Amino acid sequence: MIRGVYCASATPLNDDQSPDLGALADHARALVADGCDGIALLGTTGEANSFSLTERRTILEAAAKAVGPERLLPGTGVNALPETIELTRHALSLGVNRVVMLPPNYYKGVSDEGLFRAYAHVIETIGDNRLRIVLYHIPQVSGVPIGHDLIERLVTAFPGTVVGIKDSAGKIENMTAMIERFPGFSVLAGADPLLLPLMGQGGAGCITATSNLVADSLATVFRHHADPIRAAEVAAAQARINAFRDLSNSYTQIPAIKAMVAYRHGRSLWARTRAPLVPLSASELAELKDRLIAIGATVKDLAA
Amino acid sequence: MIRGVYCASATPLNDDQSPDLGALADHARALVADGCDGIALLGTTGEANSFSLTERRTILEAAAKAVGPERLLPGTGVNALPETIELTRHALSLGVNRVVMLPPNYYKGVSDEGLFRAYAHVIETIGDNRLRIVLYHIPQVSGVPIGHDLIERLVTAFPGTVVGIKDSAGKIENMTAMIERFPGFSVLAGADPLLLPLMGQGGAGCITATSNLVADSLATVFRHHADPIRAAEVAAAQARINAFRDLSNSYTQIPAIKAMVAYRHGRSLWARTRAPLVPLSASELAELKDRLIAIGATVKDLAA
Repeated sequence: MIRGVYCASATPLNDDQSPDLGALADHARALVADGCDGIALLGTTGEANSFSLTERRTILEAAAKAVGPERLLPGTGVNALPETIELTRHALSLGVNRVVMLPPNYYKGVSDEGLFRAYAHVIETIGDNRLRIVLYHIPQVSGVPIGHDLIERLVTAFPGTVVGIKDSAGKIENMTAMIERFPGFSVLAGADPLLLPLMGQGGAGCITATSNLVADSLATVFRHHADPIRAAEVAAAQARINAFRDLSNSYTQIPAIKAMVAYRHGRSLWARTRAPLVPLSASELAELKDRLIAIGATVKDLAA
Repeated sequence: MIRGVYCASATPLNDDQSPDLGALADHARALVADGCDGIALLGTTGEANSFSLTERRTILEAAAKAVGPERLLPGTGVNALPETIELTRHALSLGVNRVVMLPPNYYKGVSDEGLFRAYAHVIETIGDNRLRIVLYHIPQVSGVPIGHDLIERLVTAFPGTVVGIKDSAGKIENMTAMIERFPGFSVLAGADPLLLPLMGQGGAGCITATSNLVADSLATVFRHHADPIRAAEVAAAQARINAFRDLSNSYTQIPAIKAMVAYRHGRSLWARTRAPLVPLSASELAELKDRLIAIGATVKDLAA
């Protein structure tokens, strides 16, 4: 099983909008030091779909060099299956065997048969038994939900390859239903507030955006959720996570997460985003600083 | 202005799922013979987002060789702006100056500011005054509508470059509002039944799926809609278009259009689709044949 706290890490940008690989490596090392079990880079928070295939490969290589390929869980699913295959093969070539795979998501309302064929084509074409795939259910963004009947078909056809799901839809009932129906399948919360309730139901951990900031608290919840002696500590950790999450979600989430990372590291470049996302304004940045301090964050002054 | 009947052409596949460039070239020539003013390949009907960048370039080159670059209006908008730039530059390098450009559409609910920055980044980076962009409004698929205030900003900032819109949302009111607000801006119907009403309101033409089959009728509507002596002929042409459209939409639309093209050319390969789309079943194909005959289509027996 894939278990643990994984960071849906953000991607820093140079002034010319290219990925800042040095800042990326620094952040990856900081996340491991925080207690992340791994880094789920190149997901929705990582603006993966805003980068070219070439840039995605470069980002993955820099992260693998910084913290080792075995810690990484990159997104490799795009709309065109030949490119999903190319990105997944590239990951495997680096020793990155575990990936999070979006379904092709341009067309909406597609059938389970069509999605099954898409995943099957990718898995069979790659034909590498090292590969471990975490499905990605984020219908509010992708527009293409991953339903339970589809999962049943995939885990039956490809046991040992289709091993889990990142569920970012934010509904605990959907996650507990998958835990019950698919024994040994890793159900990972994509929404930070659900880590503690999910662990109580047999969940496998999380892949979340707020872990760019408070992975230490997520690690506390993950490791000690079942220890009654530490219940107060665990509850406090989850409350801290939720405070950071609520703060980011009071703005546009991804630009706010990046701005919060900017204050964490004291580096203004982190606040940049790629269009169609828009960075926080100067006044929002100033306000965010005060609000971070109010929730107890350690805030560094911003330098280039 | 970009005026006329453009075919949102489907893309034929070999048995190994690669694009069949020979069948593509044959179809492109047939569409011109039907009376299409041009071919809007690599759109939603063309399964553009299911092809890699390399495949898209190959498809465009084959079409340009078949019917000439000046007849083409390819889709070049993808989620990653560096790749939108790459595809658009490639089109320009072939002498294809007019493109249909989807906005980046992975993220939903993005601001007009973000979409403006995305288009502006692409246009300014390319920096080629030959470029003519048709925006692509298909919110039921892309999830990212193109609103009127965004159009206002784009046509003001980039007059002569942002020259029109393909509106596939199917609402005549939205199209007439754009015609009134943006003089000289080409409003093209993406939905076949709206060609005749749109032309009566000052529309510029259409880019539609059914034109893979009945572009001759669409050309009749486009050319003679204002001629009272030919009103009955025009109405009959629009009725024929609508019958083909209703038939395709009684199945999953794109697989049905491809199956209808298969019967048009008598070539079974045309019925293939790429996942996540699923071809019509054998029984659906047989039924479709009868239904095509019932609406007066010329149907050829299928051969490989």
